Amino acid sequence: MYLGFDIGGTNIAGGVVARDGSLLAHGSRPFPHGKGPDAAADAVAAMAEELSSTVGGGLAESVGVALPGSLDPERKTVIHAHNIDFHQVPFWELLQARFPGKSVSLLNDGDAAALAELLFGALRGCKTGILLTLGTGLGGGLVLDGRLFSGGLGHGTEPGHIALAHDGEACTCGNRGCAEALCSAGWLARAGREGLAAAGPQSLLYKACGSDPAKIDARLVIDCAGAGDAVAMEIFDRYVDRLSDALTTYANLLDPEVIALGGGVSDAGEFLLAPLRAAVERKSFFKYPYKIVAARMGNRAGIAGAALWPHIT
Amino acid sequence: MYLGFDIGGTNIAGGVVARDGSLLAHGSRPFPHGKGPDAAADAVAAMAEELSSTVGGGLAESVGVALPGSLDPERKTVIHAHNIDFHQVPFWELLQARFPGKSVSLLNDGDAAALAELLFGALRGCKTGILLTLGTGLGGGLVLDGRLFSGGLGHGTEPGHIALAHDGEACTCGNRGCAEALCSAGWLARAGREGLAAAGPQSLLYKACGSDPAKIDARLVIDCAGAGDAVAMEIFDRYVDRLSDALTTYANLLDPEVIALGGGVSDAGEFLLAPLRAAVERKSFFKYPYKIVAARMGNRAGIAGAALWPHIT
Repeated sequence: MYLGFDIGGTNIAGGVVARDGSLLAHGSRPFPHGKGPDAAADAVAAMAEELSSTVGGGLAESVGVALPGSLDPERKTVIHAHNIDFHQVPFWELLQARFPGKSVSLLNDGDAAALAELLFGALRGCKTGILLTLGTGLGGGLVLDGRLFSGGLGHGTEPGHIALAHDGEACTCGNRGCAEALCSAGWLARAGREGLAAAGPQSLLYKACGSDPAKIDARLVIDCAGAGDAVAMEIFDRYVDRLSDALTTYANLLDPEVIALGGGVSDAGEFLLAPLRAAVERKSFFKYPYKIVAARMGNRAGIAGAALWPHIT
Repeated sequence: MYLGFDIGGTNIAGGVVARDGSLLAHGSRPFPHGKGPDAAADAVAAMAEELSSTVGGGLAESVGVALPGSLDPERKTVIHAHNIDFHQVPFWELLQARFPGKSVSLLNDGDAAALAELLFGALRGCKTGILLTLGTGLGGGLVLDGRLFSGGLGHGTEPGHIALAHDGEACTCGNRGCAEALCSAGWLARAGREGLAAAGPQSLLYKACGSDPAKIDARLVIDCAGAGDAVAMEIFDRYVDRLSDALTTYANLLDPEVIALGGGVSDAGEFLLAPLRAAVERKSFFKYPYKIVAARMGNRAGIAGAALWPHIT
């Protein structure tokens, strides 16, 4: 049994993971914002103790931690993780001190999720594949030659930071027009809020949020689009169009067997996938009906991938 | 000794290639436009005979042909090669019939050039690398895990058809806003022609082309920019800015050891490479000084790569 943690901007999720990817126990607690990396390491250690005692105590042989950021090639230092405000943090050292005698490892969260999909989910058995996580941000990972690919120089891969619009909307990474700025759940929510005035008081979008823009999130926009609201449909079509630009880029560059979509937006299912497949086939160089599917591991992908990463040969 | 051919929109270039990549003989002839695939195969066969006789006759054991287009995964049929108007052409069969008893193979020209750079040039010894050929179009190839990567499904890789501008300039592939539409020598020439009026009769650009827009090509724009012409400099800066978007996309997705630039535009050398490196380091997620260098194999890259492809294990 292995311990896996998935640190996000809101919560730290953790679990005891079996070799088959199943979670024998799991839990989460809020990320200790503003308290520094030591507090985060403490939280992971406390959760590890709780989780271990749930399954009988002391059995986990390794601790894998997934993070929303970039690591140094040795995966000991977090270079930048904007959502949790880690910059040049020697987080591996902080964790290892709390788990003497155990193997501790760090991994990018997109890589962890892609690994879980490769081992047990939508990328299983594929040699060339991509996982995209359409959440608040846009993360993901690459499978090349049947293995997780963490960048040629070991920095990682950032499929959410391909350039889709020159001088486009500002991105969290400091650049502009990245896929993350244009194709994430965050974009859908922002576009929904901006579209509220145009939608007007008779619209479904207006009613669904009780005229409160702050209540508009990606799911609400998608639900309203699905129910036929004109402004929400226009926003969703624009979203699909941009996301298909991103998928076309991956397709033309890597010609992948599978593109798997996870994260909250992927809950839209075929309402998202069907028009996306059509657009990518139309736009892609090879005019090939690429296999574009929903990811299968859900929220446990990061935990499972982080836990099993040290045990993949 | 191996025969290699590089079929382009203007010429067919061919050579007798030694195992070390050197050309023992080489030549070229115009591509027989409008005469159909059989005429192209005849031209290759006639050139093969000439080249073989130059080096003593009958010694080549294989014939490799590079083409500017997409092939089926078995590399027997040319799916689309727009510049030579081949669509669903069983070109391997046509060639094999002209070389009985010899091993004949087809390869995408970007792949052939990348292979040559991997074997003998700027990508030598690298595990993760990209070659971009900045010519009339924008071709190239990928090296992953130290080997030529021809797409996960065998369709190829098209680094020139990543999406850089939604609803941007029309691209030869039928899509809009591809890197090829925005970062090729073709774009520089078009922008130079369009900028001529603004440049005015006193400008270097105006004088260099003798006021004839048809005489403006990428090299003339680059030369004028290098000499300080304001309009040409503005065009060149825009070009570098867009090309750095493309390179940032490759960098963020693949974190490559080397990005090599070939083709006519790369003759600009450090005038192109220095600002490009700075822009990519600034824009890329990992803020890493990626190794962005000139390709080394020049025009013989396609010939050498095509010739040696069947002999790479």
